Amino acid sequence: MVVGRLLLFGGGGVKVGVIQGSSQAGKNGVLFRCTQQAAGPLGHEVVNFGAFPGEAEAYSYVETAVLVSMLLVSGAVDFVVTGCSSGQGMMLCCNSLPGVLCGYVPTPQDAFLFGRINGGNAASLPLGLGFGWLGELNLQYTLEKLFAGDFGCGYPPEEAGRKRRDTALVKELGAITKGGAECFARYPAGLMEKARKRKNVMEYIRQYGDGTGVLWNGY
Amino acid sequence: MVVGRLLLFGGGGVKVGVIQGSSQAGKNGVLFRCTQQAAGPLGHEVVNFGAFPGEAEAYSYVETAVLVSMLLVSGAVDFVVTGCSSGQGMMLCCNSLPGVLCGYVPTPQDAFLFGRINGGNAASLPLGLGFGWLGELNLQYTLEKLFAGDFGCGYPPEEAGRKRRDTALVKELGAITKGGAECFARYPAGLMEKARKRKNVMEYIRQYGDGTGVLWNGY
Amino acid sequence: MVVGRLLLFGGGGVKVGVIQGSSQAGKNGVLFRCTQQAAGPLGHEVVNFGAFPGEAEAYSYVETAVLVSMLLVSGAVDFVVTGCSSGQGMMLCCNSLPGVLCGYVPTPQDAFLFGRINGGNAASLPLGLGFGWLGELNLQYTLEKLFAGDFGCGYPPEEAGRKRRDTALVKELGAITKGGAECFARYPAGLMEKARKRKNVMEYIRQYGDGTGVLWNGY
Amino acid sequence: MVVGRLLLFGGGGVKVGVIQGSSQAGKNGVLFRCTQQAAGPLGHEVVNFGAFPGEAEAYSYVETAVLVSMLLVSGAVDFVVTGCSSGQGMMLCCNSLPGVLCGYVPTPQDAFLFGRINGGNAASLPLGLGFGWLGELNLQYTLEKLFAGDFGCGYPPEEAGRKRRDTALVKELGAITKGGAECFARYPAGLMEKARKRKNVMEYIRQYGDGTGVLWNGY
Repeated sequence: MVVGRLLLFGGGGVKVGVIQGSSQAGKNGVLFRCTQQAAGPLGHEVVNFGAFPGEAEAYSYVETAVLVSMLLVSGAVDFVVTGCSSGQGMMLCCNSLPGVLCGYVPTPQDAFLFGRINGGNAASLPLGLGFGWLGELNLQYTLEKLFAGDFGCGYPPEEAGRKRRDTALVKELGAITKGGAECFARYPAGLMEKARKRKNVMEYIRQYGDGTGVLWNGY
Repeated sequence: MVVGRLLLFGGGGVKVGVIQGSSQAGKNGVLFRCTQQAAGPLGHEVVNFGAFPGEAEAYSYVETAVLVSMLLVSGAVDFVVTGCSSGQGMMLCCNSLPGVLCGYVPTPQDAFLFGRINGGNAASLPLGLGFGWLGELNLQYTLEKLFAGDFGCGYPPEEAGRKRRDTALVKELGAITKGGAECFARYPAGLMEKARKRKNVMEYIRQYGDGTGVLWNGY
Repeated sequence: MVVGRLLLFGGGGVKVGVIQGSSQAGKNGVLFRCTQQAAGPLGHEVVNFGAFPGEAEAYSYVETAVLVSMLLVSGAVDFVVTGCSSGQGMMLCCNSLPGVLCGYVPTPQDAFLFGRINGGNAASLPLGLGFGWLGELNLQYTLEKLFAGDFGCGYPPEEAGRKRRDTALVKELGAITKGGAECFARYPAGLMEKARKRKNVMEYIRQYGDGTGVLWNGY
Repeated sequence: MVVGRLLLFGGGGVKVGVIQGSSQAGKNGVLFRCTQQAAGPLGHEVVNFGAFPGEAEAYSYVETAVLVSMLLVSGAVDFVVTGCSSGQGMMLCCNSLPGVLCGYVPTPQDAFLFGRINGGNAASLPLGLGFGWLGELNLQYTLEKLFAGDFGCGYPPEEAGRKRRDTALVKELGAITKGGAECFARYPAGLMEKARKRKNVMEYIRQYGDGTGVLWNGY
């Protein structure tokens, strides 16, 4: 599970998933494009899971967070860029689910520090709140700074060691208090069914995940 | 556990704890004062747990989050206002611990929406990042709006029902994936000892908590 | 000319005009409503000059700034709440015109400090930039704080005297370097004609202005 | 006078002055360093005029704005990066003085748009307000985006022509309503004397200015 280790991006080759709630389907294109612009040149692969405009089935932020959790807990992707109208609900739900340590990053400054200090594996951006005329500018700047350095390396440099130790402790605590994929079977009725309907995500996990997927595909 | 129910503040009488990391001990006074100004006139009781300036023992954000979790899981307080240098680390650690659903609220707008929509029981504020000259103004405005309405009532009004259902689902998921006070016994060495040294918090839990405290005071 | 004196709002009875560029005509309603909510209870009169949605004639931010300047230089209103897509262009143009000292106030904190310290007679808000989902919240909070105290009283209190002296000096310098209503006759072709077409503004100045209006209505 | 033309930075060779009020002397180093990092690689020359820490003579924001105006009106520099505690006072005073068109740019987004759309020749940054722990991050990001493109080129691209025409009109209006260096002789007692005491600025204007300097050095 990615949450348990430092995610060092420096070497390239990391897979970044983009997925956001249907209420912000209209922003999927700009979210994907900005993530690619920021992460692509560093050698990361960016995969777009939607929600796309015009889809028949809508995914609430809770339902989307379930997909984020599946993508990460299965190792199918290493990092997720996500969001909802405010960004806060998605962050809270992600942090309530297995395998996700998700920051709320409304500004470039927040994004840089979350990436360097907190080293989580998901970032939730506000795609409605504060996203007005030319809102793609702040989105682009925020994603630029999110990927501007190794994840979890510690910052500022003179306090890097202490920051890394604190981050490791947060992840250790999360591993103690939160369950893993076995929790899926106890989710409220309908949530797993809804998740399994998201074919592009399920197919991706089947192909690139570590096999954990059988836990929820087959029960 | 507070996370499992809607926390309606309208009736008054709720207990709000203020507690933040030692790295921001110098801001404890203004954090407490602003919380009182915002929550006091609504009939809430505000209790200040520090960290205070000049204390011999320093509490990192991780160690402080452990105290936040104890205060909430025991029912000793109903809501916690907290923070660290960026606010993000405290939020992430709180959300990794039993009984806490914690927002990151750097602005009045974030605070209002977190309070009304997400209805968590802790709010983490940036006490260093962005907190410069006259930084108490934004702090004061943010806390004003955090308490400006019932918690978890849903917003905007025309979508309140759907928002409340999503919030309830987030809390239900948290209760499924995250353990409760029984997790404390499995924390990394030293964390519980450090927590027990915080006499004012321990004493408060003993006096006002629901008895869960025996789980970690006696083992 | 209002710029030349301290504008003390404490006594009530001040007239506040609301007027913004046509590119943000759709926000006129919320801008007016929020200004009324903030200024009304303090005894100020708020007058809405548009631009309104669906008007045949569009007013650019430059053309709107000319109207702002006329409203203020004639004394028809005492203060103007305005804005454009970013707020910055309107602020810059207003400050280039007679009788206006205009702040750019994107946040509640900026608004409070501009009102107390800089004591200008116009505030330009970003009505597109950063104005997304529920953007009326930040607008409302910003206007609340803009009117939360006397204008130009100085802040923080312990430095109030020095702040007021600096503000007075800024206004004195503006009066030296910038011309007054006599400049109107030298404006680029078409600007004054466009301004005179704005009947509600012209009529208001005729009725409530100090007579300066003859300078530009009759030439 | 720079205000009257489009300032196209693409070709390099532009001179950028850094100068801020004494109340923020402690931030001079980081302001200069961040400006160099942003503007240096583009071929611009960055000159640091202080105020430096530990200087005997303090310069208020009004007195500093007078120096900004002299540097620009004389053509000694092409652009000025400045600031005060809030950034707002400096912006207002600069805009009240000859030869300056100054934006207030608290965020990267504001800075990018001000540079591209409004094409002024000075930018005022908040060096106290919102400048807390690691505040140099937002400062650095803001200056990066300020210089990320030609000044006054218009933005977004599809509206560039209209934006450029509006900007040209703002500058034309400023040239009509505001006087030039001849205003200096009418400044309140003491302001010019104080300005002339700032030897590094005076010397720089004498050496690199267009000769306008005689207007105020000799009277």
